[in-house]
Amino acid sequence: MPQLVVTFDCPDRPGIVHAITGGIVAAGGNIAELQQFSSPDTGHFFTRIEVDGADRVRLTDAIARATEEFSARFRVDDAGRPTRTLILASKAGHCLNDLLFRWRGGDLPIDVVGIMANHAVLAPMAAFYDVPFKHRFVTAETKAAFEAEIQKFVVDNDIELVVLARYMQILSPELCEFLAGRAINIHHSFLPGFKGANPYRQAHTRGVKLIGATAHFVTSDLDEGPIIEQNVVRVDHSMDVAKLVRKGQAQESQTLAEAVRLFAEHRVIVDGDRTIVFR
Amino acid sequence: MPQLVVTFDCPDRPGIVHAITGGIVAAGGNIAELQQFSSPDTGHFFTRIEVDGADRVRLTDAIARATEEFSARFRVDDAGRPTRTLILASKAGHCLNDLLFRWRGGDLPIDVVGIMANHAVLAPMAAFYDVPFKHRFVTAETKAAFEAEIQKFVVDNDIELVVLARYMQILSPELCEFLAGRAINIHHSFLPGFKGANPYRQAHTRGVKLIGATAHFVTSDLDEGPIIEQNVVRVDHSMDVAKLVRKGQAQESQTLAEAVRLFAEHRVIVDGDRTIVFR
Amino acid sequence: MPQLVVTFDCPDRPGIVHAITGGIVAAGGNIAELQQFSSPDTGHFFTRIEVDGADRVRLTDAIARATEEFSARFRVDDAGRPTRTLILASKAGHCLNDLLFRWRGGDLPIDVVGIMANHAVLAPMAAFYDVPFKHRFVTAETKAAFEAEIQKFVVDNDIELVVLARYMQILSPELCEFLAGRAINIHHSFLPGFKGANPYRQAHTRGVKLIGATAHFVTSDLDEGPIIEQNVVRVDHSMDVAKLVRKGQAQESQTLAEAVRLFAEHRVIVDGDRTIVFR
Amino acid sequence: MPQLVVTFDCPDRPGIVHAITGGIVAAGGNIAELQQFSSPDTGHFFTRIEVDGADRVRLTDAIARATEEFSARFRVDDAGRPTRTLILASKAGHCLNDLLFRWRGGDLPIDVVGIMANHAVLAPMAAFYDVPFKHRFVTAETKAAFEAEIQKFVVDNDIELVVLARYMQILSPELCEFLAGRAINIHHSFLPGFKGANPYRQAHTRGVKLIGATAHFVTSDLDEGPIIEQNVVRVDHSMDVAKLVRKGQAQESQTLAEAVRLFAEHRVIVDGDRTIVFR
Repeated sequence: MPQLVVTFDCPDRPGIVHAITGGIVAAGGNIAELQQFSSPDTGHFFTRIEVDGADRVRLTDAIARATEEFSARFRVDDAGRPTRTLILASKAGHCLNDLLFRWRGGDLPIDVVGIMANHAVLAPMAAFYDVPFKHRFVTAETKAAFEAEIQKFVVDNDIELVVLARYMQILSPELCEFLAGRAINIHHSFLPGFKGANPYRQAHTRGVKLIGATAHFVTSDLDEGPIIEQNVVRVDHSMDVAKLVRKGQAQESQTLAEAVRLFAEHRVIVDGDRTIVFR
Repeated sequence: MPQLVVTFDCPDRPGIVHAITGGIVAAGGNIAELQQFSSPDTGHFFTRIEVDGADRVRLTDAIARATEEFSARFRVDDAGRPTRTLILASKAGHCLNDLLFRWRGGDLPIDVVGIMANHAVLAPMAAFYDVPFKHRFVTAETKAAFEAEIQKFVVDNDIELVVLARYMQILSPELCEFLAGRAINIHHSFLPGFKGANPYRQAHTRGVKLIGATAHFVTSDLDEGPIIEQNVVRVDHSMDVAKLVRKGQAQESQTLAEAVRLFAEHRVIVDGDRTIVFR
Repeated sequence: MPQLVVTFDCPDRPGIVHAITGGIVAAGGNIAELQQFSSPDTGHFFTRIEVDGADRVRLTDAIARATEEFSARFRVDDAGRPTRTLILASKAGHCLNDLLFRWRGGDLPIDVVGIMANHAVLAPMAAFYDVPFKHRFVTAETKAAFEAEIQKFVVDNDIELVVLARYMQILSPELCEFLAGRAINIHHSFLPGFKGANPYRQAHTRGVKLIGATAHFVTSDLDEGPIIEQNVVRVDHSMDVAKLVRKGQAQESQTLAEAVRLFAEHRVIVDGDRTIVFR
Repeated sequence: MPQLVVTFDCPDRPGIVHAITGGIVAAGGNIAELQQFSSPDTGHFFTRIEVDGADRVRLTDAIARATEEFSARFRVDDAGRPTRTLILASKAGHCLNDLLFRWRGGDLPIDVVGIMANHAVLAPMAAFYDVPFKHRFVTAETKAAFEAEIQKFVVDNDIELVVLARYMQILSPELCEFLAGRAINIHHSFLPGFKGANPYRQAHTRGVKLIGATAHFVTSDLDEGPIIEQNVVRVDHSMDVAKLVRKGQAQESQTLAEAVRLFAEHRVIVDGDRTIVFR
């Protein structure tokens, strides 16, 4: 039987782990990995458990019965099932290339169902990896229509994750709302420093000694969504903006790929404005 | 009631977490943090649990009853209780200074009961921090006697942890055996590279671009004990051995302090030749 | 003859390095290390040169003659001469302890001439390291007087560097002006994120995955002075503010010590709002 | 006029920088960047200078005249000229993909003239990037013939750099000799730890807390060539060998790409068993 992943959260109180693990025992499962966190900020309990040797339906049932009293949200998924993913892109291909290569190499547990872009330049890359690619130049006039297409694609294809791989458009509040908790953006700075446009130029002007990248959930509050992953790299006075960009792109690709992996493995849970990441 | 820390290990099989958490529920405790690992290499199960709201004796009892069938080793300790510690040193004071300062500042949950050294040079530092200091110049003739003193000090003072803070003597196999699992050494290289003497000179000769430090349990197999913590720092061609030493010492202090903290918080467990570290 | 360090800057144009090195040759010196940077942002030329085998007075003279035409500022100093330093502190001792230990161990090329603080708590540490310590509780009423004392101390003792080792007072614009280019502060965040008070609390609230420290020159524009050095360390959701503080303090000590070393070795030059750092 | 890069080395003695810069002045050039290092280990002088505003032939001539007395090796090259590169590969595509994408994106100053492999699996990737691909299954019998083809390709195509992008064959001493100083390998460990085969398995067994990658020049002494670049990443007890491999591959790609860039920008110079890297 394939390994299962249980994610579970509810208001914190005594006895939760014992109840859940009671469900696991009842379903004949064995715990391969268990992580747990009780948030002092929100008074909420979170856990992620990998279970061997149990049937998914039976385990779901057993946990539901064992934890009835806790008003929990929980989910049992096959550990190996790839997350159905839509990627949004513009012109810069470094993040897209990295995601596609890792996916094809079996290194990311996702299934890239489509790519949508506001420029055509990355079409050959999509073709090489054999992924449907749709582009439409986005203007004030066409934006709503394109966002409707994105929304339709998500619905029609059971998309679970939308990745903004340096998609240089701001999503409308409606689309943000629609994608809440399932859209990840890569911002090319170490947030909260250097929000908005041209962060590498801002970093050069300020003369920082480290630059970075931040993967976060998309919210309508630009560059303010819950942070999933961040990385930095050392820079010095001799580097102009172009060199900062080049240095930073490696961080962007890697940070985004790591955030996607964490999400696809059900390791990221939103807790208010912050994330819990069970590594 | 103070927070308690449970560490527990036994041969892996289904039902262990459920059983332990049953004991916690029975003792009226609430789980603040739970980490668990089943080692595929040794087939052993390990967990570390922080429990609020329970009495230590009652919890110990309840877990013992609930897990009878598992032939487990386990221990319940007050989370805040400082670990009784003896530090061994030679001439270099950077690690000793760092440990003493952190301890006095309440940053390390240890109690430094004594310092023993094979040189007198660090006596004023010990005096400043008001710690008994004993030194004896160690030669082939005096080594056995000094080691007997160390052993006696450990026994007489209920020492739980012996820290070799750049103690430049090789311990006898007998003393290693006596201190097994409770002595931590800091080696001034990124093991397994550059074992033995003068690792910074070896690093310079080899022309590595990163140097590091390794904190590990002491075993009679020199520089081969289970690794607890490692760090590195970037270096370049222009640095001579003296500069590598200076760069490396900051890593040594920090790496050793982190390893001591992890140990004192019951976060380090030996699993064969490796360690499990519940951060 | 001791090694000399030349720092030299002027508006950029062809022929500068040739002219300076002509002076070095004329003085019988040999170049051990030469670093150079022409700032595209300010059109200014900067260099730092270590010279062996030359007399200081003679070299100064020779460079002055050889570079007359460039309207340069330059300085020739003994490489080994310790920088005369005043440290300002409050209650937190981790940075002070680190600086004093490194200084006494010969690891920082400074001479700590005095410590001034707005609390008495660090007096014993100053006494242990045998450094004059002056404290005065700073209020709105006493601030001007204490700043006058600081200024007098700097003048009377030929202080070259003032280090704010977690000195929790904002300096007046007048004192900032007086200390321009020779006062280094450590800020307990990765600037420009989390300026002002309680950066660790801000970091916790924002849910960042890395926290950091920034050493910068003091200017009257709070937390905006030219950055000298920055470091970060990984954190996660489970760490409360107290744990972030503890994690961050190691970064603060190390970052400040590195900035002090770079300054004392004449490796830091202000270029507008940024610094050039010749490592 | 395009920017030029001068690399120059000779036995160390006074006056070298002055002489070279005299040549630069004579050729009407301006120094954009100058780095210099005198190796105490080998008594050799090294410099790398970026020069604006000068003609290549005229500058070469002027430097030759100005530095006649120093028995130097030196070279003047167009800063922007791409380094003619041959890549050797086997089955693993992560390094190859990274190099090809960076090259096509203008991020690496190389020209990938060909790819030779001992497996066919990466042929489609080569085709996508439109690079001639040749594969031949290498056995004891065919090895000499394939190495002869490599050698011929290098000669026929004026190859300046051969990159072993996880090429899983040991080169013969003859080929190593032929490619001395112009072949870069990526080793999947933090050398000198874990030489030879299966370094990730070795790392798992030893229980290290950081794993890494090392880019080095190829020599006939396996895994012992001068190191160009190294990186590490943190790992923990829960990661099996497969996860270490996945974690490590990101380091391999990035470390190799950085080494290739440094080489192509004439920033790497061999100094005995070590490298000087002018960043």
